[in-house]
Amino acid sequence: MLEPPQLLRRKLFYQGRKFAYEVNRYRLPNKVEGELECIRHPGGALVIPVLPSGELVLLKQYRFTVQRRILEFPAGTIEPGETALSTAEREVQEESGYSAETLKFMGDILLAPGYSDEAVGIFLATGLTKLESPPDQDEDEDIEVLCMTPEAVEKAILSGEIIDSKTISAFMMVRHLVML
Amino acid sequence: MLEPPQLLRRKLFYQGRKFAYEVNRYRLPNKVEGELECIRHPGGALVIPVLPSGELVLLKQYRFTVQRRILEFPAGTIEPGETALSTAEREVQEESGYSAETLKFMGDILLAPGYSDEAVGIFLATGLTKLESPPDQDEDEDIEVLCMTPEAVEKAILSGEIIDSKTISAFMMVRHLVML
Repeated sequence: MLEPPQLLRRKLFYQGRKFAYEVNRYRLPNKVEGELECIRHPGGALVIPVLPSGELVLLKQYRFTVQRRILEFPAGTIEPGETALSTAEREVQEESGYSAETLKFMGDILLAPGYSDEAVGIFLATGLTKLESPPDQDEDEDIEVLCMTPEAVEKAILSGEIIDSKTISAFMMVRHLVML
Repeated sequence: MLEPPQLLRRKLFYQGRKFAYEVNRYRLPNKVEGELECIRHPGGALVIPVLPSGELVLLKQYRFTVQRRILEFPAGTIEPGETALSTAEREVQEESGYSAETLKFMGDILLAPGYSDEAVGIFLATGLTKLESPPDQDEDEDIEVLCMTPEAVEKAILSGEIIDSKTISAFMMVRHLVML
């Protein structure tokens, strides 16, 4: 059930490249008033690509925010005119170099509901074909493609090698389907 | 291995209540230059409280960003002078009304490494005692405490009733320890 807060005063708004940042004064349903910061994000899509061998395709991707490379499933922001499904279709091709025959929607997750409205749609991709000439990656991306068994992914989560929350969540949502 | 991007120009900086928002021009390790938006966050801690019965303590919490109540494990932002462990200790008391004899660190997760540096430390809490007079919640919090079996938590993740990514990730990291 939606319970919108009451907007009392707009304070700050900045439209960034991928999302907007705003600070407003709200009255919450419990009557408390305060200035609250929020990322307004168009949402994203994440794909768990399952190869015919049962292995999963992951990316080792440079993230400037944490100044290092981390393991993630292919994912990206929903661009204008796209649906979560078409974003998933584009990202699996651009980032992993495979096209998927089937993309099954597994559910949405919220990344940081304390300060962001970003929802990410999770898709399980099967019927993968390696593209002979994959589309260009976004120019600021710096990505290496890896294949891992579901068991290796689970082990990497438990050992702390995989620390990306959307990747860990997506694996949790499909592990009963992909574990060999 | 840390690979810091090269800062070319500062553009925008706003210090919010819980985190800072900045937009800067960077040169990335792959030589690409661009204006990149980033949340600078002090980090947080999440607690999975395990009752003597084996049930887990969750919260149904109002989130203004998505205008509704969602299920989450107790969690919060690291305040000045705190460590992730002391934040975990404080949050389990404030939000769930239990004190924990043991808080075992299970690892850090990143919530949205594409645009935020927020890391959340995950702690498994055992030896719980219900507090007779729990400390006050933060005044803007609007929380109901629930107990669920690990099986019910897993089912709620697979059915889409639990959609908070840090909660799903934390459950994935401890499910082999808490499933009855």
